[in-house]
Amino acid sequence: MRCPDEPVVPSTSRRSFMKYASMFAAAPVLGEAHFANAARMAAGGGKAGAFSLGPTATPEDAVLINANENPLGPCKAACEAISAMAPHGGRYDLYGYEEQLTKTFAGQHGLKPENVMVYAGSSEPLHYTVLAYTGPKKGLVIADPTYEAAGYAAMASGAGVFKVKLADDYSHDMKAMVAADPNAGVIYICNPNNPTGTITAKKDIVWALENKPKGSILLVDEAYIHLSDGEDVIDQVAAGKDIIVLRTFSKVYGMAGIRCGMALGRPDLLKKLMRYGMNPMVVTGAVAAEVSLRDADLVPTRKKIIGDVRVDTISWLKQNNYKVIGDSQSNCFMVDTGRPGKGVIAAMQAKNVYIGRTWPIWPNAVRISVGSKEEMAKFKVAFKQVMDAPAAPVVAENEMPMTRDGVVLG
Amino acid sequence: MRCPDEPVVPSTSRRSFMKYASMFAAAPVLGEAHFANAARMAAGGGKAGAFSLGPTATPEDAVLINANENPLGPCKAACEAISAMAPHGGRYDLYGYEEQLTKTFAGQHGLKPENVMVYAGSSEPLHYTVLAYTGPKKGLVIADPTYEAAGYAAMASGAGVFKVKLADDYSHDMKAMVAADPNAGVIYICNPNNPTGTITAKKDIVWALENKPKGSILLVDEAYIHLSDGEDVIDQVAAGKDIIVLRTFSKVYGMAGIRCGMALGRPDLLKKLMRYGMNPMVVTGAVAAEVSLRDADLVPTRKKIIGDVRVDTISWLKQNNYKVIGDSQSNCFMVDTGRPGKGVIAAMQAKNVYIGRTWPIWPNAVRISVGSKEEMAKFKVAFKQVMDAPAAPVVAENEMPMTRDGVVLG
Repeated sequence: MRCPDEPVVPSTSRRSFMKYASMFAAAPVLGEAHFANAARMAAGGGKAGAFSLGPTATPEDAVLINANENPLGPCKAACEAISAMAPHGGRYDLYGYEEQLTKTFAGQHGLKPENVMVYAGSSEPLHYTVLAYTGPKKGLVIADPTYEAAGYAAMASGAGVFKVKLADDYSHDMKAMVAADPNAGVIYICNPNNPTGTITAKKDIVWALENKPKGSILLVDEAYIHLSDGEDVIDQVAAGKDIIVLRTFSKVYGMAGIRCGMALGRPDLLKKLMRYGMNPMVVTGAVAAEVSLRDADLVPTRKKIIGDVRVDTISWLKQNNYKVIGDSQSNCFMVDTGRPGKGVIAAMQAKNVYIGRTWPIWPNAVRISVGSKEEMAKFKVAFKQVMDAPAAPVVAENEMPMTRDGVVLG
Repeated sequence: MRCPDEPVVPSTSRRSFMKYASMFAAAPVLGEAHFANAARMAAGGGKAGAFSLGPTATPEDAVLINANENPLGPCKAACEAISAMAPHGGRYDLYGYEEQLTKTFAGQHGLKPENVMVYAGSSEPLHYTVLAYTGPKKGLVIADPTYEAAGYAAMASGAGVFKVKLADDYSHDMKAMVAADPNAGVIYICNPNNPTGTITAKKDIVWALENKPKGSILLVDEAYIHLSDGEDVIDQVAAGKDIIVLRTFSKVYGMAGIRCGMALGRPDLLKKLMRYGMNPMVVTGAVAAEVSLRDADLVPTRKKIIGDVRVDTISWLKQNNYKVIGDSQSNCFMVDTGRPGKGVIAAMQAKNVYIGRTWPIWPNAVRISVGSKEEMAKFKVAFKQVMDAPAAPVVAENEMPMTRDGVVLG
């Protein structure tokens, strides 16, 4: 095995590769991790379309600001809990770690334990919610651009995908989303939005809850909420509304690879997810999340660290007349490069800086994740060099299809 | 948090509880972990049907032989890999741990990397295979008794479930299973079978592959294969047949709570699973599995340890004229107690020994997992006391529904 502290030749996982290869064929379900690897592939190799193995060009000291990861990693107490748990890992959830996590979270957030379902990240419940609540006659409404996973899940359920352009301030256009499909099954809201990092006001989400099509639910993905000043909508869960809120420990808590997340909702709403998959919880993720929740300083401290780096990076970009889209309050933001984004991504990778992907609606914009101060210093140098050089020609590529039989709005 | 080495009052997780509560209503998907906790509940509390929290009666020194867990836990190298990985857990699969695991496994088993899809256990691919390949017009064929998860997944896909009684030697009756549904989508074979631990011969599975209904696939769950002398069917994957084989690190490798498993199949078969869920892999599980595979002594050593305890326990049972069903080659077996099994389970729990559940087809039989030598010594004492006493009255309970609209055979 290549232990994390050993010298390694980093490579991209076969599954990610497989996914990337098939993205262009069938648009399977992808998580942020897979987009990240896909982006590395897309930028570096042009190997898409074939199954292939072997190390990529990603050097060990690469700046990885392509997957909205948290360079701080899990907190120390979480690492210790993981190590302490490992020898006991022969058992399923032996002593109710998942229950303890549920109780701690519920107690901190004004929920009852039955409003909380723990998963190994929020990808599973995101997916299962779309599988459970959309179908050929119950559409999925999403923003454009937004995180793509819900759209991919709709391909399994057979739902039409209704894409609604972000409002002028890059918030979700809730009025247009509510009106997009009178037979909507799920309206997906990512708040702050991925990739723009922009906030949608709680009052707009509450308005949508009161005015959404009958029989639909709101799926509010709060993966990045801790990094922002935006208000969460967990009180709407407590009030018994038609809403499922997703939380993850992948972002502010730095546990993307450790895996822990939650779906929050009425028990009758959550119960329906269980038919679509119910993997026993990874006990290391459960204990790491629980100790992280108990550290009252973790969120404000990390919010400030990441926020300061974001503000500094965006200030620098603006001072240099680069166009940042919207007002990010997250660990990512979009930059309109004024040239094909895929070419910028490739040129940045050639300088050992891996940035995020483009979205079809904004082919000239690239997503930048907020890394460490040191990483962003390297980003600045590389970005200026790339933008000072002429745009490289970009070979045309098929875009990922985001609709099946739904009307595309915006 | 209650760390594993601290004194704890064990309790059952809320999710397991929630599942158990709803088992009787809607039969959701349950993993072995959840059955285990459900059994503890069923035996101890009678709290089913309500959402409830709080410690169960399970004392810390309970003998837990109810979930086919491995008391040996993860090997030392796996624990070390998990600890070393924890601080790097802020990243998704940064350096291709999943790819490395895939390559190691494929290389050891005569497969190509594209035949291997890594998951956080085998529950996900078991579930997704049934979702992908069954439906209202494509039935699921399973043995009776067998592991129930595939049957629950069929409730989400809308497939009829065709149950085929085990043959007289408690192998899968492959001829009857192939004939059970001419429109079958999936024929599920658990080998060795859970709960009986009995083997189905490779030649019978290969025969089924050649004679199964057109358009169907075989789903062969080899979770327990390492513990037996049975032949695996991975070469049928290499040969490109219509088969998906499941492997897990939960059993012989002792990683039930750490989570790692695999689906093995043709790339075109595996690709279809991706629409139903694709959670980023837990990196601790990936590295722990990879180092475990590299330990050539692990499987034979553990097979002997667990096998010796199984043989000793079954010998003792037979010497005392208890009726063991079939010839187990696994870490579990069934005992026909000649009285309602649920009463035996409750009486055993009162003696601090938690044994496995019953199956509807054999209400007098209970499943016993093979624990450590010390645990099985306690089991023997408690079991003899329970069986020497009169049978306690058992309150009638609803059984879990295992069919939806399929014909029940056997």
